[in-house]
Amino acid sequence: MVISLELEGVPMATNRVCKLVKRPSPGLVKPDIFSIEEQALTEPGAGEFRVKIGYISLDPAMRGWINEGRSYVAPVALGDVMRGYAVGTIDASNHPDFKVGESVQGLLGVQQYAISNGKGVGKVDLTKAPMERWVGGLGMPGWTAYFGLLEVGQPKAGDTVVVSAASGAVGSIVGQIAKIKGCRVVGIAGGADKCRYLTETLGFDAAIDYKGGNLSKDLKAACPQGIDVYFENVGGEILDTVLLQMNTFGRIIVCGLISAYNATSMPDGPKNLRCVLTQRLTMRGIVVFDWANRIPEAIRELAEWHAAGKLKIREDVRSGGIDAYPEVLNLLFSGGNNGKLVLKV
Amino acid sequence: MVISLELEGVPMATNRVCKLVKRPSPGLVKPDIFSIEEQALTEPGAGEFRVKIGYISLDPAMRGWINEGRSYVAPVALGDVMRGYAVGTIDASNHPDFKVGESVQGLLGVQQYAISNGKGVGKVDLTKAPMERWVGGLGMPGWTAYFGLLEVGQPKAGDTVVVSAASGAVGSIVGQIAKIKGCRVVGIAGGADKCRYLTETLGFDAAIDYKGGNLSKDLKAACPQGIDVYFENVGGEILDTVLLQMNTFGRIIVCGLISAYNATSMPDGPKNLRCVLTQRLTMRGIVVFDWANRIPEAIRELAEWHAAGKLKIREDVRSGGIDAYPEVLNLLFSGGNNGKLVLKV
Repeated sequence: MVISLELEGVPMATNRVCKLVKRPSPGLVKPDIFSIEEQALTEPGAGEFRVKIGYISLDPAMRGWINEGRSYVAPVALGDVMRGYAVGTIDASNHPDFKVGESVQGLLGVQQYAISNGKGVGKVDLTKAPMERWVGGLGMPGWTAYFGLLEVGQPKAGDTVVVSAASGAVGSIVGQIAKIKGCRVVGIAGGADKCRYLTETLGFDAAIDYKGGNLSKDLKAACPQGIDVYFENVGGEILDTVLLQMNTFGRIIVCGLISAYNATSMPDGPKNLRCVLTQRLTMRGIVVFDWANRIPEAIRELAEWHAAGKLKIREDVRSGGIDAYPEVLNLLFSGGNNGKLVLKV
Repeated sequence: MVISLELEGVPMATNRVCKLVKRPSPGLVKPDIFSIEEQALTEPGAGEFRVKIGYISLDPAMRGWINEGRSYVAPVALGDVMRGYAVGTIDASNHPDFKVGESVQGLLGVQQYAISNGKGVGKVDLTKAPMERWVGGLGMPGWTAYFGLLEVGQPKAGDTVVVSAASGAVGSIVGQIAKIKGCRVVGIAGGADKCRYLTETLGFDAAIDYKGGNLSKDLKAACPQGIDVYFENVGGEILDTVLLQMNTFGRIIVCGLISAYNATSMPDGPKNLRCVLTQRLTMRGIVVFDWANRIPEAIRELAEWHAAGKLKIREDVRSGGIDAYPEVLNLLFSGGNNGKLVLKV
């Protein structure tokens, strides 16, 4: 049985979608690679349900998903709805386990309505946190921070943990989890405002403005015992600088290399790679999908810390709906957002 | 009691030593950074013994040990005897556990005679393998291959394992151990002779002459299932090429970066570092000292394989004694050696 909120007599409902229609050139994304289109709203088939999307997550990974070539997932095909995490409420269902009125998150796409068979979709509890938070700190960025730091970084109390893009969606949570685990936490961010946010609001031990000083000197001052764990979101010169200050047997979690995502020429690799050898570092790339079967564990613990006031989460919610997506996406790469960037649909 | 082989009436015995007297400039090592000197032969003190050195190991790591700056061990101090693995026979002893006539290996230095208190020195059994082999395949290069490949590389039967500098002291053993473990093994080496040696003598599945063709194409042809484990001895362009062909969850053991050791300008890092992220690779630096307490295990298993004919070892023994050390050292970086480079004293 299809349960639908659609009423007779109302003009035919439509679904506004953002499709990828061109591959991007290197550099910031030009809006014309996307096409905003209006489609007839489809009904869920057998074993499916439909989600009215409330918020769409904007993630640096999106820049990779639109490129052609080998990566951890196939690129978004031309003509397809742009891939994206989103959260919303079920408004029609033929699925026994997903009922109308329940809220869910998952890779629902950059559109107003999504049809799903439930695969890879999880329910969210809006009594515990507002809807946008389920694609923010309690969503993919939170899980990424959780598994990346704890499973790969293996932080021990007293370790010095450095995180880049520290005021971003993932970085801000990495730093707070490291504090919960008893580490000295140093964040690298761009600009005095972001740095102040890290130390004054999130409780980081120190914050370094990579735009504002001498990164190498500032890092040495903030990490007098050297660096045991580095959570990498940026790459480029920041990685090169950090490598020289890593302690023996240090761990580097490669979560993102945002400095290269829009590069117009092939970026240089880390010149100080020899430190991996001399200090016996472990550098490991992570993609949160690899812990897909353990996501409930991450959500449970993150939500507990959040409820206990130990984990502060900030979304930067942008309006404008689906049409605003191409423009809002670029904010990620210009440092224009404050907190997890989310688009209200 | 000092047991000494010295006879009365013989002119005073001397010890010819190679001292480091200057820091090297970037590039190949100039002989004038070393000074060959003749010293009076000293007697072992209480709890010490003296080793008459038979063979000295020449290792790429030596190029790092003479540089100033931070590394996994302190640099050789100016005025000190050059650090080096060596093997020889005890000719005088005041140590209860080390007797005259026993043979030992360890960091005994580039000299004719060494005084030791036994720390870091291990006995070798010349009935099992000739003396030079105990600084070769059954010595440090063998242990490095053993722990690096097995502990960090975690090769499983059926995996494709690629090793660079494959005909070298470490690489040739890495490949043979990987064969013993049931892997497909591909070696990268410079020149047709070395490649023939890998496939015809050592039983590698394929060998690629990085000087002779198109590395990327040749590697793809030799590794149709992609690369699961890469044992890195070289760095530079070879690493960059391999990165693009690594399988998801692949392991990269960073054992050496010989392409950079003599660089006259700061070498570029791997431009394809993004593969660490997209393929969730683990890249880990290794130094054999970190398994110091497990070396007997490596020796036991390597010697068994060697005795069973599964592990072929080839030394390239050079004559000329201590005086030849500075010149022979550079052979490592010009690819001029065939097999483990060893200096006969």
